[in-house]
Amino acid sequence: MASVDVPIALLGYGTVGSAVNRLLTESADDIERATGHRLRVVKALVRDPGKERDFPPVGGVLTGDFREIADDPSIAVVAEVMGGLEPAGGYVLELLRRGRHVVTANKQLVARRGAELFEAASAQGVQLRFEASVCAAIPVIKVLRESLVVTNVHRVLGIVNGTTNFVLTEMEAGSTYEEALAEAQRRGFAEADPTDDVSGADAAAKMAILATVAFNSRVDLEDVEYSGITTIDPLDVAAARELDMVIRLIGAARLVDGHVRPALVDQQHPLAKVDGAFNAVMLQGDAIREITLEGPGAGGLETASAVVADITSVLGTMGTGFLQNDAAWRQLPRLPSGDSRSPFYFRLSVQDRPGTLARVAEELAEREISIARLIQHPNGSGASLHVVTHEARAGAMAEALETLGGLPEVHQRSNALPVVSERGVTELGWA
Amino acid sequence: MASVDVPIALLGYGTVGSAVNRLLTESADDIERATGHRLRVVKALVRDPGKERDFPPVGGVLTGDFREIADDPSIAVVAEVMGGLEPAGGYVLELLRRGRHVVTANKQLVARRGAELFEAASAQGVQLRFEASVCAAIPVIKVLRESLVVTNVHRVLGIVNGTTNFVLTEMEAGSTYEEALAEAQRRGFAEADPTDDVSGADAAAKMAILATVAFNSRVDLEDVEYSGITTIDPLDVAAARELDMVIRLIGAARLVDGHVRPALVDQQHPLAKVDGAFNAVMLQGDAIREITLEGPGAGGLETASAVVADITSVLGTMGTGFLQNDAAWRQLPRLPSGDSRSPFYFRLSVQDRPGTLARVAEELAEREISIARLIQHPNGSGASLHVVTHEARAGAMAEALETLGGLPEVHQRSNALPVVSERGVTELGWA
Repeated sequence: MASVDVPIALLGYGTVGSAVNRLLTESADDIERATGHRLRVVKALVRDPGKERDFPPVGGVLTGDFREIADDPSIAVVAEVMGGLEPAGGYVLELLRRGRHVVTANKQLVARRGAELFEAASAQGVQLRFEASVCAAIPVIKVLRESLVVTNVHRVLGIVNGTTNFVLTEMEAGSTYEEALAEAQRRGFAEADPTDDVSGADAAAKMAILATVAFNSRVDLEDVEYSGITTIDPLDVAAARELDMVIRLIGAARLVDGHVRPALVDQQHPLAKVDGAFNAVMLQGDAIREITLEGPGAGGLETASAVVADITSVLGTMGTGFLQNDAAWRQLPRLPSGDSRSPFYFRLSVQDRPGTLARVAEELAEREISIARLIQHPNGSGASLHVVTHEARAGAMAEALETLGGLPEVHQRSNALPVVSERGVTELGWA
Repeated sequence: MASVDVPIALLGYGTVGSAVNRLLTESADDIERATGHRLRVVKALVRDPGKERDFPPVGGVLTGDFREIADDPSIAVVAEVMGGLEPAGGYVLELLRRGRHVVTANKQLVARRGAELFEAASAQGVQLRFEASVCAAIPVIKVLRESLVVTNVHRVLGIVNGTTNFVLTEMEAGSTYEEALAEAQRRGFAEADPTDDVSGADAAAKMAILATVAFNSRVDLEDVEYSGITTIDPLDVAAARELDMVIRLIGAARLVDGHVRPALVDQQHPLAKVDGAFNAVMLQGDAIREITLEGPGAGGLETASAVVADITSVLGTMGTGFLQNDAAWRQLPRLPSGDSRSPFYFRLSVQDRPGTLARVAEELAEREISIARLIQHPNGSGASLHVVTHEARAGAMAEALETLGGLPEVHQRSNALPVVSERGVTELGWA
């Protein structure tokens, strides 16, 4: 088959953009053999074309003028690797409206303006691909759309933030939260301002995108409740270990709800085994039971690799009617927040005297929460209670903890953390 | 986009074939939304059209005559789910030559006749897809070809046979080999004649296919050396545990060589965590570091799900010049078998007297094999030595064990098993 020359433009030429150009240049022959197309970066939009760059492009490629890309009809595919909501969002929208295929690595853009962008793409019959926006080179978007098309995926469970996973792994090894975060920053896994990562907001955006694709139903950023890891205490980490579990920031989406929150994960569970800055996504569906994809969820080269894969996938499916835009064709009813069910873990500091445990058990029983496991340790003049419940309503659990926290016998209480166990994933309705 | 009606034919209507028809029927709306195509099974070739079937197709679909499929020009895509080398091979070849796209779940066919079949497909500009031939629903072929197109994958490491993984997992829990195999048969994980699985032959065929796709270089079945799990002794399983390792049947392919053999896997390694009948494939490449895909590697519904995904992928890429046939465009030099390097484990029963260990160490040192870890246990009147070496030439290791086995001080010796550790995978040349 004769090779086709394909001019590509980039919006942005930072770490990811320069890596895209490098991969396209160095692997041009491989790509041509695999796709029959010769890809070439002809324009790259940057703020300052005069600045020194990694892998500098050939002369004339860098430009400070978006119009040079938007108005050049020979450019078929544009990769948006500049990040941020604006001007990236406006650029992408204009390009789609003018019939260009767009590939983006921009998680916030897809999570916040997806509906509008995909509508524009569909109206023009062009594609907006976004593999790189979730977990970098882990090809979870392609797998969900193209491999699991008939599996009725009903749950997505994942570790989708490498920073927090690294911090929690370090805390397991004995670090405090502050030490672990400092180490993550030293190694480049965490930004100077790590708020987006440690608060769970970054993971929530990824889970919104994943859930939308998995369930063919628009899941907005606001549909994903999230809490972060900043309140995780070394005491919780130690208790988890004693229970043969680890603490991980778990994103979980079901047809009826979505959460990102720290959870106790049974050590036998595949997600417990994801260490350091790696990511993993577990997809559960009717025809496949569960498929897990694991790998580095960040990194310039990894992200660029996903961008290039998206570009080649656009070329491979152009004009065949293979709908690559998000097909959010169904409306799913959402469960009220308190109605989610899960086994939970919590910790209490109590007075060590007769009747305390009975009182705790009573408050739980009244709300139909039954205890699955209990560990008690002496703690100064009192005792620490570590409790794992059977499946319970999240609302009832929160209410019980509120009440327990107010008892005179209880000095201190933790939040309730969901528990992900082997059974929790395969049989129970954990979310 | 207007929906296109696509007549599909099946070769075979057993467990997988009927599941394909069921998925296509029950998910027809989903597939149409995702691809713009309405898929319909119009013919299914069986030996006995009168036999009772799971999910029986509508009247007139079952046929005993291949010509009804081969001679019907309206059929665009045929799924081969009958298995066996003949007549499946002849049918697939004729269909490709007559310009039909073919999707197959037939591992032996692809591993043994791939070159011929792909050549026929390329000559006609049609596709031969084979996701279901390797690890059922785990989408490793699509990921290798479409997502990792620029990552220069240089190593594939996998647990690609669920039967043996189940048996080894059971042995860890205390079963003998025979008990574990019987349990696997009882649960349907192993066939009445399990030879193909336990010998490593099944895994070798999968690794040949994976290596061909990963490296863009034809890897024949004979290029993959294999040994099975029949000689694994509970003593080895116990020794592995003591070394914080587990025994797994590992398929490993590098650019220069390919093996399937039992290996000791460090418990921290992702592949050590694959339990029971699950499969996992780890892909290592320049731009991605490593990506691991895990899931059920067998099962009728799982396999059917991969077949349907391939059919929809054919429809999505038809006529775009996206070459979906295996692109074995490069010749790679192969390392002579003895030249592969790896850390190894072996076990000796020796007389417990002065000088024995010195003698063993000497024989190893002469062949430039150095000891990384050593465990000695009393064993009757003698001792058991469990040895883990640093990286060594496989040829030298075999030679040393041959010599050691002939020493009067040595009563018994195991084979050498490669060791897969964290370092082994990320830095050393284990294969």
